[in-house]
Amino acid sequence: MPELRKDPIIGRWVIISTERAKRPTDLIPAKEETAGKGGFCPFCEGNEDKTPPEVLAYRKDGTKPNSPGWRLRVVPNKFPALQIEGELNRRGEGMFDRMNGIGAHEVIIETPKHCQNIASLSEKQFEDVLWACRDRILDLKKDKRFRYILLFKNQGVAAGASLEHTHSQLIALPVVPKRVLEEIEGSKRYYLYKERCVFCDIIHQELAAGVRIISENRSFLCLAPFTPRFPFETWILPKAHCARFEHSQKEDFELLSEILRDTLRRLDAVLRTPPYNYLLHNSVIHQDNDDYYHWHIEIIPKLTKVAGFEWGTGFYINPTPPEEAAQFMREAQY
Amino acid sequence: MPELRKDPIIGRWVIISTERAKRPTDLIPAKEETAGKGGFCPFCEGNEDKTPPEVLAYRKDGTKPNSPGWRLRVVPNKFPALQIEGELNRRGEGMFDRMNGIGAHEVIIETPKHCQNIASLSEKQFEDVLWACRDRILDLKKDKRFRYILLFKNQGVAAGASLEHTHSQLIALPVVPKRVLEEIEGSKRYYLYKERCVFCDIIHQELAAGVRIISENRSFLCLAPFTPRFPFETWILPKAHCARFEHSQKEDFELLSEILRDTLRRLDAVLRTPPYNYLLHNSVIHQDNDDYYHWHIEIIPKLTKVAGFEWGTGFYINPTPPEEAAQFMREAQY
Repeated sequence: MPELRKDPIIGRWVIISTERAKRPTDLIPAKEETAGKGGFCPFCEGNEDKTPPEVLAYRKDGTKPNSPGWRLRVVPNKFPALQIEGELNRRGEGMFDRMNGIGAHEVIIETPKHCQNIASLSEKQFEDVLWACRDRILDLKKDKRFRYILLFKNQGVAAGASLEHTHSQLIALPVVPKRVLEEIEGSKRYYLYKERCVFCDIIHQELAAGVRIISENRSFLCLAPFTPRFPFETWILPKAHCARFEHSQKEDFELLSEILRDTLRRLDAVLRTPPYNYLLHNSVIHQDNDDYYHWHIEIIPKLTKVAGFEWGTGFYINPTPPEEAAQFMREAQY
Repeated sequence: MPELRKDPIIGRWVIISTERAKRPTDLIPAKEETAGKGGFCPFCEGNEDKTPPEVLAYRKDGTKPNSPGWRLRVVPNKFPALQIEGELNRRGEGMFDRMNGIGAHEVIIETPKHCQNIASLSEKQFEDVLWACRDRILDLKKDKRFRYILLFKNQGVAAGASLEHTHSQLIALPVVPKRVLEEIEGSKRYYLYKERCVFCDIIHQELAAGVRIISENRSFLCLAPFTPRFPFETWILPKAHCARFEHSQKEDFELLSEILRDTLRRLDAVLRTPPYNYLLHNSVIHQDNDDYYHWHIEIIPKLTKVAGFEWGTGFYINPTPPEEAAQFMREAQY
């Protein structure tokens, strides 16, 4: 019997096909096209003049901006979805609303070497990426036009990567997106009812149940959520309540880079380097969400197609129960 | 300058990249894999015993159920997302909620011939499809366990079709999906404020503006919506206010099949038979949405990838302004 499960945060329903559950080997996509393969790579060391000037770089003492000698660079996206200069100019046109597409769109180039898979970076490099995200979030927060900052990664062409050299992206938006509002409001609703954080409660219940836990360390928990939209959807949450990623301490970043790297390597082992996206779910900039929101990372492998049913309902059909996905992930060897 | 546009119904924001607008030829996907190509087809005439027994068929007088002689058949999905027999048995597990996956999942086989593209069917065949949807909706509505019925089509492998023989699907659900609730509630909010239907107002404003209109006939309007999530997203709406598809009259179905077929043929001409989904947006079963909801069809071609940014925000980045898409669609020759 398939099972309908309701997400306790935003109320989304998911259909878990328990009977025709798919094993990882049934989900592995056919060999993937690679992005920009073999061609010139603007993200490699030595090609600094092929990107817009860097806004941040971790580099050797004595090396100049926009020249070799860096371990990590952040540059504006050359083809930004939103433009940094200008005013919002909100306006109506009859019943329709529009405004200028103002925002920041930056690229975090995670290594000077032409590496295609973030999972093969060292823990230290992961830490650099996390520090760079924090530094950029703190800087972008100062711009009063912005309401939300999204950090995300598209790993693999099927997940939307257009350049294979490993990189993450940051987008600062002038409005709070619907998806974010839903999660913030869902968390608030729960908090008003229970006077507890919904994510803290999930962590508590999941640790007691155990079946969906993948791994943990002193500060972080990695689990398969109760209502995954996609097979092998995986979340990483700080165990202690914390609303904002950028408030993390040095030790947090060490432990987060350890568990994030380990999780991506497990995913690669179980699903043979699948395409995936991961997303930082963080608080809204100028709002006090501190009591009820709990930042976390969601990793969604791209193994199934989103088709008419999903578009029409916002429901998802997931052929892999999270309890089985968690077991494969726990047992993964790399 | 990119532009942010807000959908007047549910408040979703879309980024329209007006500057690097893509022409249809930039969007055409590489040649597509075909589903189940060359193999045995359970939907072809003569193979009736390879599907579950039909629940509806339009067939020649004197022919028997589940034998040749039909022009259209509706059968339960052999691998249903939800199961028809049983009780819902809603239950909790700590803070989590679940229920049995009860529902109907049916397949409308639109022709007895092995045709891969619905657009090549005749207008009469389109009418049959619409009548079959109506007949099945009226029947499924009697089942008190169901709250919503979704009709959708996955055309092409990239849009989720797993069998190439042209077919649509109907899913009856025991809960009202989030996506549907958002649209119903958005329409209601507008109605409470304006005492008018938001879709009727859109039709009125779009007819006056003209730039996003693709085609129209006596009863229906085809347009590119002001805030399309995807390039060449196209909507077909009844011009007169009507909340329920199944209340359509005979003449409505004639005119709808004409404009739907014409629209799909235009899409095929402009984008060279792209993969797409179309979805019937209809009222909730046991609710009186009649004053403020307006049924319609949304067609979404699959030309761009949904990546981290879209998953993280619910925002969409669309490289084709709807005004340009509408012009290509208006001028399409087939």
